[in-house]
Amino acid sequence: MSGRKRVAILGSTGSIGTQALDVIANHPDRFSVVGLAAGRNLALLEEQRERFKPQVATSAADGSAGLLRVAVETQPDIVLAATDGAVAFDAVLAAIERGIDIAVANKELIVAAGEVMLAAAAQSGSKLLPVDSEHSALFQCLVGEDAARVAAIGLTASGGPFRTASAAEMAEATLEHALAHPTWRMGTKNTIDSATMMNKGLEVIEASRLFDQPGERVLIAVHPQSIAHGFVLFTDGSVKAQLCAPDMRIPIGYALSYPDRLSRPQAQAAGEPPRAGDPLEALGAKPGASQLRYEFEPPDFERFPCLRLAYQALARGGTAPAVLSAANEVAVRSFVEGKVRFGEIARIIETTLERVAHRDATLAYIREADSDARLAAAEYVEDIRCT
Amino acid sequence: MSGRKRVAILGSTGSIGTQALDVIANHPDRFSVVGLAAGRNLALLEEQRERFKPQVATSAADGSAGLLRVAVETQPDIVLAATDGAVAFDAVLAAIERGIDIAVANKELIVAAGEVMLAAAAQSGSKLLPVDSEHSALFQCLVGEDAARVAAIGLTASGGPFRTASAAEMAEATLEHALAHPTWRMGTKNTIDSATMMNKGLEVIEASRLFDQPGERVLIAVHPQSIAHGFVLFTDGSVKAQLCAPDMRIPIGYALSYPDRLSRPQAQAAGEPPRAGDPLEALGAKPGASQLRYEFEPPDFERFPCLRLAYQALARGGTAPAVLSAANEVAVRSFVEGKVRFGEIARIIETTLERVAHRDATLAYIREADSDARLAAAEYVEDIRCT
Repeated sequence: MSGRKRVAILGSTGSIGTQALDVIANHPDRFSVVGLAAGRNLALLEEQRERFKPQVATSAADGSAGLLRVAVETQPDIVLAATDGAVAFDAVLAAIERGIDIAVANKELIVAAGEVMLAAAAQSGSKLLPVDSEHSALFQCLVGEDAARVAAIGLTASGGPFRTASAAEMAEATLEHALAHPTWRMGTKNTIDSATMMNKGLEVIEASRLFDQPGERVLIAVHPQSIAHGFVLFTDGSVKAQLCAPDMRIPIGYALSYPDRLSRPQAQAAGEPPRAGDPLEALGAKPGASQLRYEFEPPDFERFPCLRLAYQALARGGTAPAVLSAANEVAVRSFVEGKVRFGEIARIIETTLERVAHRDATLAYIREADSDARLAAAEYVEDIRCT
Repeated sequence: MSGRKRVAILGSTGSIGTQALDVIANHPDRFSVVGLAAGRNLALLEEQRERFKPQVATSAADGSAGLLRVAVETQPDIVLAATDGAVAFDAVLAAIERGIDIAVANKELIVAAGEVMLAAAAQSGSKLLPVDSEHSALFQCLVGEDAARVAAIGLTASGGPFRTASAAEMAEATLEHALAHPTWRMGTKNTIDSATMMNKGLEVIEASRLFDQPGERVLIAVHPQSIAHGFVLFTDGSVKAQLCAPDMRIPIGYALSYPDRLSRPQAQAAGEPPRAGDPLEALGAKPGASQLRYEFEPPDFERFPCLRLAYQALARGGTAPAVLSAANEVAVRSFVEGKVRFGEIARIIETTLERVAHRDATLAYIREADSDARLAAAEYVEDIRCT
């Protein structure tokens, strides 16, 4: 048993949590599950508890005390932060303060509270290991490199369902159309964020924080094939890029096993040996492909105003990213509920950013900004519906 | 003056040597030139001597003693091995034995004598830093990574002038056609090697040696744009690739400055600041490009039999790679001189590999195999001409 990495999972019944448990189940010699915190899916939590035998398993019913027990009292080597929103901020911060590494799958953790979390990690020596495929790519490209020699970092974007749509089509897009993501399978919120490209805006903020680069050095390249996930341009003109199949188990496995890498592809865990002989497969092509073609385009800031808003919030700093993220949640929910049109999502966020007071980034101000933004955004949604 | 890296250059008046001096001239705070060894271009050597003021400057007239003085007696931190053929083997080996790092631009050094050079480097702690764009790419992708987690390494190939030609067209190809390389500007020998793809075969052997990977784990991907230069597939299914403009000053600068990177792109040394804001430019596109398209195909071992021969020589080991390389030189020269047809180059090499006795890889046997191969290949060329 000794030598296995002790893993605690916040959000064990969600998409990232269950895929992480897949990875762990494929590597029982390397990981043990010491804690599981779920939301409301008690049946699945019970299954996970039977299978992985954690010391502690808690659900939303246990409140923030349950999250804290899982993140800290189980004495994990690494906590996978895979809950949504701000619910686990305190538990994760407590783990960071104790020097426990964090595999970060909770975007808001860095978007809204990045300054707080990173400052705490710098003090305790805790490592924040990204799970997002784009940030994992950047992290991998930066291994062994000197941050002072980075000229720019770049995230790729699939471009979402509206990559080639006109502005007029987008303004009136239906929910069904917006949910038709070309490459990744994700929940409703993430899929709409992909359609507005706000997902990429939030990732720009996350990348800026995690890799300590100003916004103007965080680039976006639209790459419809979703095989290259991120790239780093160095000062000498050299670029490193990371590529892999769009399978979240690869970046999850990397975050959990870092600084090591797992010994076989997650996708082939069922028993098939890794096929190294085909250069196109090595580069991410499906078996039998006779040619690979990877395309890259600059993003269109006119058709995707959410991108512009994200860069602005990043430049402003303080509570602005928290307001951006909270306003976006309200705007997306309002669109999904049929209250506003697709084209109004960005306007709701922009207006909310104007209306909510700007403060420094302390955890208390961030929470306040989050709830103020939700109120302001909801009010503005009502304004739109009444005019 | 202290703190500057002391550089000795073997082959200072050649293509790589002059580009290395360009790099050094752009970074006078980081490098000093302590030794220059040229071939027969005495006028250029004199210019270089005036400009860079080395302790020692020698030419072919000084023979192997001159090379040894430059490589060892000048007490360099790094020797750039940029001569052709085997002429500098002894001088480079002497430098390696003294723990001096080598920037390797002399393919034969690793192809023919790799086992000897690498064994000496392992003993002395000398680092062998590749200058070839492909091997530099692999080296960069492996920085900070564990070699035990490498599943495969891959070199890209432009595909040369015959990428899309039929086998019949290739058999009778003219010298002019074979010299029309699409992306890189190189000497005649290298350009013909690119047309037969033997350059890639030799690079596969070099990569196998430098990165300690068996032939079946060294892949080739034809990539007509020549922007991605190499990639590494890790055991977890993740791939890292290195990209940059096809400008040899970038890998030369990397080898000379490693483990640091130079502080600005060589291509922009004239005064233009690095432009980090355009994602396509960061990925290697020309300024103003609105879309990038990178293609990758598997190589065609039928139309490019030299590739097959190179993998065979690598698998056989010992003196076989030296025989391959020497026979190729004779075959290419015979084609350039109009003695044989393009389609006969591979046959000359294959026959020479069959006819020359196979020995273990000691420096003495390698030299013997080299001259035996040249004789055997020349004889076979005469056979062809007389039938």
